Amino acid sequence: MHVLVTGAAGMIGRKFVERVARDGRIGKAPVERMTLTDVVPPTPPKAGFKTTARADDIAAQGIAEALVKDRPELILHLAAIVSGEAESDFEKGYRVNLDGTRRLLDAVRTTGDGYKPRFVFASSIAVFGAPFPETIPDEFHLTPLTSYGTQKAIGELLLADYTRRGFLDGVGLRFPTICVRPGAPNKAASGFFSNIIREPLAGKEVVLPVPETVRHTHASPRAAVNFLMHAASMDTTAIGPRRSLSMPGVCVTVGEQIAALERIAGAKAVKLIRREPDPVITRIVAGWPERFDPVRASKLGFKAESSFDDIVRAHVEDELGGKLA
Amino acid sequence: MHVLVTGAAGMIGRKFVERVARDGRIGKAPVERMTLTDVVPPTPPKAGFKTTARADDIAAQGIAEALVKDRPELILHLAAIVSGEAESDFEKGYRVNLDGTRRLLDAVRTTGDGYKPRFVFASSIAVFGAPFPETIPDEFHLTPLTSYGTQKAIGELLLADYTRRGFLDGVGLRFPTICVRPGAPNKAASGFFSNIIREPLAGKEVVLPVPETVRHTHASPRAAVNFLMHAASMDTTAIGPRRSLSMPGVCVTVGEQIAALERIAGAKAVKLIRREPDPVITRIVAGWPERFDPVRASKLGFKAESSFDDIVRAHVEDELGGKLA
Repeated sequence: MHVLVTGAAGMIGRKFVERVARDGRIGKAPVERMTLTDVVPPTPPKAGFKTTARADDIAAQGIAEALVKDRPELILHLAAIVSGEAESDFEKGYRVNLDGTRRLLDAVRTTGDGYKPRFVFASSIAVFGAPFPETIPDEFHLTPLTSYGTQKAIGELLLADYTRRGFLDGVGLRFPTICVRPGAPNKAASGFFSNIIREPLAGKEVVLPVPETVRHTHASPRAAVNFLMHAASMDTTAIGPRRSLSMPGVCVTVGEQIAALERIAGAKAVKLIRREPDPVITRIVAGWPERFDPVRASKLGFKAESSFDDIVRAHVEDELGGKLA
Repeated sequence: MHVLVTGAAGMIGRKFVERVARDGRIGKAPVERMTLTDVVPPTPPKAGFKTTARADDIAAQGIAEALVKDRPELILHLAAIVSGEAESDFEKGYRVNLDGTRRLLDAVRTTGDGYKPRFVFASSIAVFGAPFPETIPDEFHLTPLTSYGTQKAIGELLLADYTRRGFLDGVGLRFPTICVRPGAPNKAASGFFSNIIREPLAGKEVVLPVPETVRHTHASPRAAVNFLMHAASMDTTAIGPRRSLSMPGVCVTVGEQIAALERIAGAKAVKLIRREPDPVITRIVAGWPERFDPVRASKLGFKAESSFDDIVRAHVEDELGGKLA
């Protein structure tokens, strides 16, 4: 199988590629070739198959056609301008997230001649906007309140129509917040969800800008890779025409996150968390969805961690070699 | 006020333009100028203000910019490739319904310099797809099952985001089936809803291809024009971020339509209806929404007829000069 991954230099893209390199297969299908693209050159993994790494502007004329020319049987479209930048740079967000996605879908469509790849699209819970019910059902309507969420919602609609038309076999995944994100603390409003776990585990102080009562849904990077693996290899006949699925996750309060950290790394880790309430971040976070009821995804076999303790342990195992500071 | 109407040669567009010509105003605002465009040249009305009629391909480079160059304060974007054609000609549907809409929105956005027109977008109940609950609430999710419905749903998402960004003041109207459509019977699967009223009222035989138990929601062409007038002149501050609204209508079975016809035009009209069940049409219609609960639109002042008798009477008054055959 030939696999194309866009956004392959991103955190999830890299982890997916490393996992495929390690496994040598996706589901039951051996991987013979991977094409990796991103706006910066992705790092090719050590793998037992051929890999090609390219730096591309996916929204530029002819690029999408070049990417699908060799008819990859599986496409993972992870490339996107992230939420904050899509909000600050309106044209760039629409160009990459809408036009780039559409160009890739159209490159597949116009290939024709029986070409019908599995097309996995990374969507986001940002397709939903407040006001929310206490628990967001699979049938909640698309009500984005950001340009990023709008672009992802449009991607979902296109994916469903191109699938219905028989041009490709689409699966859209609405990722919950990914936690614990590895790497340096970033300035995303959601960064603290990861920071308050990752930094204390590394023996470093960290700021908590919101009350401990804030509730949110999380899945580990490992779970996110598992979602992609499953979407890439699952039997799609049971999905039906509604091709995008809210992924499962662990719904906890910040207080419950901290309690899990304490169970795993002790009171000394928790002491590194400094409470400095930030009214701006608290207000932004108040507009975010808290809890999902991803019945469809669960029935279709998507699995996340079952507790936040498991999420902390996944980070210790995957990023810290199993060792605590 | 300068008003731009796209799709001005269509049935609803023509009736809207005639109404504005007659009233000379929209809400409290006198109309000083109308620019009418369609793919065929619209007929300028007899009006006490300046009208310009143009034939345009709205998706072609530079056309949208030319249309908004003089900064119309009100834009009614009614132009669209209809459902059947958007399904049979994939590229044409996306080109006009998605690219054309986006070009018009972007022409407004890039005008800048404080330009922020009211932008009324004709959407459709085709943004919804089966399976449906018995009554479709305002919060029902966007689940189109046609390319036309997909394009309209994308238009709704863009309209909301461009409004949120402050580029324009958008209102999207999801029209129910318009009945009684004037003119010759057409071959749309939904044509019979109008045919079974219009033809007998003109003393002509007509075929009913579905059982009398089929239930559907209708509004007259007159009500559709009223929706547009209200959307064009209403205070939009109460709409909130969800800018597209399911319009009210009259929910009746075909049997109830026929009973209304009999009350108004007598048994001799009803005798002109010949029952010839068509399994293909019956199956298509079975996938359509039956009933809406348009709470938001009603609260915001949108009004349809309150009975199917009123819909039949509107047709007799507006199309037949008040006379029965």
